[in-house]
Amino acid sequence: MAEKTLEELALLVGGRVIGDGSKLVTGVATIEEAGPGDITFLASPKYTAFIKTTKASAVILPEERAGIEGPDKLVVKNPYMAFAEMLNLFRPTFMPPAGVHPNAHVHEKAVLGKGVSVQPFAFVDEGARLGDNVKIFPGVYVGRAVEIGDDTVIYSNVSIREGSKIGKRVIIHCNSVIGSDGFGYAKEGARYHKIPQTGIVRIGNDVEIGASVTIDRATVGETSVGRGTKIDNLVQIAHNVKIGTDTVIVAQVGISGSTKIGSRVTLAGQAGVVGHIEIADDCIVGAQSGVHNDIKKKGVFSGSPAIAHNVWLRAQAVISKLPELKKRLEDLERRIKEIESLEQ
Amino acid sequence: MAEKTLEELALLVGGRVIGDGSKLVTGVATIEEAGPGDITFLASPKYTAFIKTTKASAVILPEERAGIEGPDKLVVKNPYMAFAEMLNLFRPTFMPPAGVHPNAHVHEKAVLGKGVSVQPFAFVDEGARLGDNVKIFPGVYVGRAVEIGDDTVIYSNVSIREGSKIGKRVIIHCNSVIGSDGFGYAKEGARYHKIPQTGIVRIGNDVEIGASVTIDRATVGETSVGRGTKIDNLVQIAHNVKIGTDTVIVAQVGISGSTKIGSRVTLAGQAGVVGHIEIADDCIVGAQSGVHNDIKKKGVFSGSPAIAHNVWLRAQAVISKLPELKKRLEDLERRIKEIESLEQ
Amino acid sequence: MAEKTLEELALLVGGRVIGDGSKLVTGVATIEEAGPGDITFLASPKYTAFIKTTKASAVILPEERAGIEGPDKLVVKNPYMAFAEMLNLFRPTFMPPAGVHPNAHVHEKAVLGKGVSVQPFAFVDEGARLGDNVKIFPGVYVGRAVEIGDDTVIYSNVSIREGSKIGKRVIIHCNSVIGSDGFGYAKEGARYHKIPQTGIVRIGNDVEIGASVTIDRATVGETSVGRGTKIDNLVQIAHNVKIGTDTVIVAQVGISGSTKIGSRVTLAGQAGVVGHIEIADDCIVGAQSGVHNDIKKKGVFSGSPAIAHNVWLRAQAVISKLPELKKRLEDLERRIKEIESLEQ
Repeated sequence: MAEKTLEELALLVGGRVIGDGSKLVTGVATIEEAGPGDITFLASPKYTAFIKTTKASAVILPEERAGIEGPDKLVVKNPYMAFAEMLNLFRPTFMPPAGVHPNAHVHEKAVLGKGVSVQPFAFVDEGARLGDNVKIFPGVYVGRAVEIGDDTVIYSNVSIREGSKIGKRVIIHCNSVIGSDGFGYAKEGARYHKIPQTGIVRIGNDVEIGASVTIDRATVGETSVGRGTKIDNLVQIAHNVKIGTDTVIVAQVGISGSTKIGSRVTLAGQAGVVGHIEIADDCIVGAQSGVHNDIKKKGVFSGSPAIAHNVWLRAQAVISKLPELKKRLEDLERRIKEIESLEQ
Repeated sequence: MAEKTLEELALLVGGRVIGDGSKLVTGVATIEEAGPGDITFLASPKYTAFIKTTKASAVILPEERAGIEGPDKLVVKNPYMAFAEMLNLFRPTFMPPAGVHPNAHVHEKAVLGKGVSVQPFAFVDEGARLGDNVKIFPGVYVGRAVEIGDDTVIYSNVSIREGSKIGKRVIIHCNSVIGSDGFGYAKEGARYHKIPQTGIVRIGNDVEIGASVTIDRATVGETSVGRGTKIDNLVQIAHNVKIGTDTVIVAQVGISGSTKIGSRVTLAGQAGVVGHIEIADDCIVGAQSGVHNDIKKKGVFSGSPAIAHNVWLRAQAVISKLPELKKRLEDLERRIKEIESLEQ
Repeated sequence: MAEKTLEELALLVGGRVIGDGSKLVTGVATIEEAGPGDITFLASPKYTAFIKTTKASAVILPEERAGIEGPDKLVVKNPYMAFAEMLNLFRPTFMPPAGVHPNAHVHEKAVLGKGVSVQPFAFVDEGARLGDNVKIFPGVYVGRAVEIGDDTVIYSNVSIREGSKIGKRVIIHCNSVIGSDGFGYAKEGARYHKIPQTGIVRIGNDVEIGASVTIDRATVGETSVGRGTKIDNLVQIAHNVKIGTDTVIVAQVGISGSTKIGSRVTLAGQAGVVGHIEIADDCIVGAQSGVHNDIKKKGVFSGSPAIAHNVWLRAQAVISKLPELKKRLEDLERRIKEIESLEQ
């Protein structure tokens, strides 16, 4: 179990201590649940009142709140970052031990780096290349000639189809699917004939992919997700989609075929994007929105079809009053008719 | 194969027979497909006409329809409950035999109750505790120190990450994921840094979780689902969400982080709920609705953003007439302008 | 590696050559990426400019573009079909070898046709019947008495519950679930009691099912998907749903219980359909639409609740102007009041 003085923690995260720097910290907890030995964190201003009453030994705070009354303080620029480091230190994530378990199946022509873990009932096919310290949890399928970069973690029951290329320090959560066939057919009369999906999926470094996500391989060429992009659970990414770097895609979003999503974009939960369009860098698309056309300039968009967020907000405010407005319109019509009859 | 007299069935479900209580019943079927020996059930009033022509030996009916002409009757208070019991009796669900299959992997420090079944290619890690009669289907991943209560069934290819606590008589359908990392990042410049997700998921007794559902572990603390709550397929439940008891969550619903859903709530299909809000007990949220704000009082809500259902209904009725209303407004403007010019 | 003359390819797809029929073709690529030896394809008119500059040895074109300047041409009726055949020829999909791998589990009372492949960690239970050339990828669960027709491919980590009947030449992509329990409960007071789901799922010939799709078994009877229907990723199909032939269901669509979808229907991405209704043959339902009522006649529908697409389009065009229209209405009210006061 980790044990650090407050001063050691301050060095680690680049902060300063207000109070007793020699105090020992042995854990991390929420402000309501923390006890002696714990360091805690102000997750939202609405918990400020708890700072006075928390049993934590120390609290992480931003500079602008350094003056608040409470326990000893670790004052930092970015409290979220410091909190993340505390969690890494005091509550390390479980990882399986290195080595190929005898109940795993690794093809003799697969190439494994140093420190790789392949757990029971995982399958690694011919020509696959796994970098150093890759962790393959139980039940994972790694198809032919799949490449996985150093320090990547693939959780249980993930399927990675042949030829996919996964970067370094990628995390893929349980039961996701990388490289499934794109949804492409040639129509002949009423019948659909499968267009073989012969391309691949390429996932950049430091990407995180949630649970039960599906990312289809390209028809020809690549479906790609750029460095540092984060994808939440149950997201659908169709064939030949290209996603930039540091983009955030929230749960249950769907992106249709051949669409290009820029860098630093946010697609909020359950949003949908039609095929063959582009969304510019730095755009934010609201939850449940439907993007039907190119978005060529940075902005915030909502609704289905999506429009500028502030226009959408004002329109939504009127919608619940529509029945009343209709009545007022009918009333005006009646009154004008009356006036018109008088005029004659 | 089960075989019961109508009188025995009446005792079982607390009903009364109209007709021949000694008649043998050997199966259960829909009113259209039933044959001799079958008992059937009036699923909806629109099938009432079939009662006269059904070939079933008996029909389950509520008291208010006891007088209908037709085959022998089993009259009960709650026909759905009686139907469920008939299906349990005549069409038992397949369950695998007790015992740990030699092709399963159970860690030597896992603890298994009586009558547990662990099927081939299932993985049960160190410190896991499985109660009596737990059924683990093929390909299931049970992580470190997971606890599973008596009589719980985990279907094939489910993933349950370390530390999750699953109650008694829970059913988790194929390929669902319990305890995947929440979607939490600290931002530094344009880049996202992972906040470790170190909490757990707690599932209450008698919960049922559909296929390909994802329930994320808490950052710190617990994501929890209360006793008796029923969750349909492809639902997303984010980190630190708390769900009450006897709540119903229909397919493809998404619930964002730290939100609290009350007890006896219904969230209809494809609805979405933003993070950090509360939905009160006994609320009903319509299909595809988007809840953006706290709902503090019981009620029925629809739309995105969600508003009172009856207001939404009336507004929707106007929406298809908007182009016509716009024209009428323009017509009024023209006429008033004319009147105004006359006035001068 | 395949190698064909342009003339041989023309015979294969029923087209004609403009240029050198003896030219050798060794691959297929996109118009931008193609090099010498490749045949390419005009995927969309907006790429027409590339025909002059492509390095491809030949290009597939429809009759109406046969006159365009460029490389040698393969002129066909249906370029998409020809493109699909080229991909099949030059870029064959990976398939595992025939045979039951020693790390697979096949029950002694399962029946396997000729050329069947059962890969490591796949599980095939008692009474299952697999037709000739069926491919079962790693980690697949095939329950009791499941029937799978000739030439069907089941990708990794798919779960097929007991009794399901899968046709010939079906493709089921990774991690999908066939035959999970329907979402059915009898309510007693505030509590829900499970109604056993005792029916099956039947999948017709030539159906393709995407990744992480869920298709629930019927309560009693069958949930069915008709011949040639294509289902994209993350689609939910509830118990007792019946889907016709040659229907297309795009990603993340949800269809509620007992609903009937006709033949040659298109349900676009993220659309939802409530339970116990019917959608007629040849209908098109737009992305994110919500169908709440029977659709009895062929047509195009959008919105939630869904209405005729052209009406919806016109209404949507007005929505962003609602705040302005409200102001104009208020202006009229003010002006009429003034006129009325003058009239008195």
